[in-house]
Amino acid sequence: MYNGTVTVVGTGMIGTSVALALRRRGVPVKLDDRDGEMAAEAQRLGAGTTLRPDDPPADVVVIATPPATVVRVLRDAQRRGLGKVYTDVASVKSRILSEAAAAGCTLANYVPGHPMAGRELQGPSAGNADLFTGRPWALCPHPTTSADAMQAVTALVTACGGEPKVLAPGIHDRVVAAISHAPHLVSAALAAYLCDADDTMLSLTGRGLYDTTRVAHGAPGLWCDILEQNSEAVADVLEVVIWDLTRAMYALRREGAAAAGVVADLLVRGNQGRSHIVGASRVLSGTGPSAHDLHLPHHSHG
Amino acid sequence: MYNGTVTVVGTGMIGTSVALALRRRGVPVKLDDRDGEMAAEAQRLGAGTTLRPDDPPADVVVIATPPATVVRVLRDAQRRGLGKVYTDVASVKSRILSEAAAAGCTLANYVPGHPMAGRELQGPSAGNADLFTGRPWALCPHPTTSADAMQAVTALVTACGGEPKVLAPGIHDRVVAAISHAPHLVSAALAAYLCDADDTMLSLTGRGLYDTTRVAHGAPGLWCDILEQNSEAVADVLEVVIWDLTRAMYALRREGAAAAGVVADLLVRGNQGRSHIVGASRVLSGTGPSAHDLHLPHHSHG
Repeated sequence: MYNGTVTVVGTGMIGTSVALALRRRGVPVKLDDRDGEMAAEAQRLGAGTTLRPDDPPADVVVIATPPATVVRVLRDAQRRGLGKVYTDVASVKSRILSEAAAAGCTLANYVPGHPMAGRELQGPSAGNADLFTGRPWALCPHPTTSADAMQAVTALVTACGGEPKVLAPGIHDRVVAAISHAPHLVSAALAAYLCDADDTMLSLTGRGLYDTTRVAHGAPGLWCDILEQNSEAVADVLEVVIWDLTRAMYALRREGAAAAGVVADLLVRGNQGRSHIVGASRVLSGTGPSAHDLHLPHHSHG
Repeated sequence: MYNGTVTVVGTGMIGTSVALALRRRGVPVKLDDRDGEMAAEAQRLGAGTTLRPDDPPADVVVIATPPATVVRVLRDAQRRGLGKVYTDVASVKSRILSEAAAAGCTLANYVPGHPMAGRELQGPSAGNADLFTGRPWALCPHPTTSADAMQAVTALVTACGGEPKVLAPGIHDRVVAAISHAPHLVSAALAAYLCDADDTMLSLTGRGLYDTTRVAHGAPGLWCDILEQNSEAVADVLEVVIWDLTRAMYALRREGAAAAGVVADLLVRGNQGRSHIVGASRVLSGTGPSAHDLHLPHHSHG
């Protein structure tokens, strides 16, 4: 059980969800946001009480601000002595970690984190105490991160209902490029095809397209920030996906058995990939073996 | 209300679903399949009784065999006098209609159809009486299709719970290329990226990727058939999507504000397209205005 105190900096959807999940376990939570009205709204929703200047340092400070602001917020918080241990929730880790080092942040008490949970909605009112339940939560420590800091943040993740997964920052970034960032852009490109769609085009819309384009609703500003921070890894995935689609397109423009072979090969590999994804999701959703049965190798290289 | 008799030829998932939906309304249904065991399984599931050689012609014959077989099955059924009116459920219409004309099929009593509903599962046991409830069901008549045939098939669609949408075959094919066939290939390409994924790659898999790749589970053989029949329209959509993704990839390989502009533009158009898709889905799912409020223009050109 987690028995420390927490300050959440940035009370958007994710920050408020962290605070609500912790409050449900009785954890004392302070709320801080550059926009005082956001913090006040989170407080009204039961996420904790707004931070006061004379509050003592929290055991863990959760930085839940947009990715591009994390290093500045971390540096300022460490200078103010806002907490004993720091973590963040940004979906890109390598660049933040190297920029934090360059900015003079203390890395020993900072555990870069990334909960693999989200909603297309924004703001405190979209916060949800169950958002992290059974979901993986990546932790990407620096070699100098202390064991005490890891222990404190791991306990916080567990208290939120999440499943801690330790990954090197570089591996994390390549994984999320493949499973989240590149799929986001691909989903956006599919939805963008229909940005000027008329009633005829939309009259037959079904569940398939609805699911395929769900993530395309994400906030463009936040996603630009994320994609730019993980640009190389995302571009590497896109390049492979584009190549597969281009081969399929040229095959469809031709006729005959050779063309069908190219398309069939892509569809069969798609089946295989989908089976892996379903298998991983069964583990997560608890309809298969427990998430604890996922023996994740702890990589020491990044 | 539909008060005729129906013969379903091809008792896979879709054919069995049609039969189950009609049986629930008390419609007499005969079942036929090249594989007698499939028809017998559908009968055991309550989808009707297997067709006998001396059965009288049905009021409507629903051909629910794979797209590449529809013309042959239609021609044979018309020669045997299996029914008074014929329809099919294949997801491509132009090529089937022109091949049916070339094969000497009677077009006056044939209404090409396409229910916009599906599951990733196959076979009679995946049949579901609710599959078509509230879903659009495209009808793509030839200019010589009789009004009586249209009326009979429209009543059948309504009895199945579907919403009839009349579209010219060529427009139908371009619409489904954009909302179903191209998204299927794109989803497959995303899933294919993970066809050799290891535990680390899959350890962070979330709901987003799960939804984006759901349709990639579709049967490769059936989908090759569909994509080949609609190859030009699908290639046209893919070309636009590939172009958007290629521009985004090159932008991510560069740095700076100009790059972000390209990515932001795609994400904003993705938001717009997603809003249209959600709007259309609200209409379909009944959480917004009724599907009857969708005033679909009836195109006379194809």
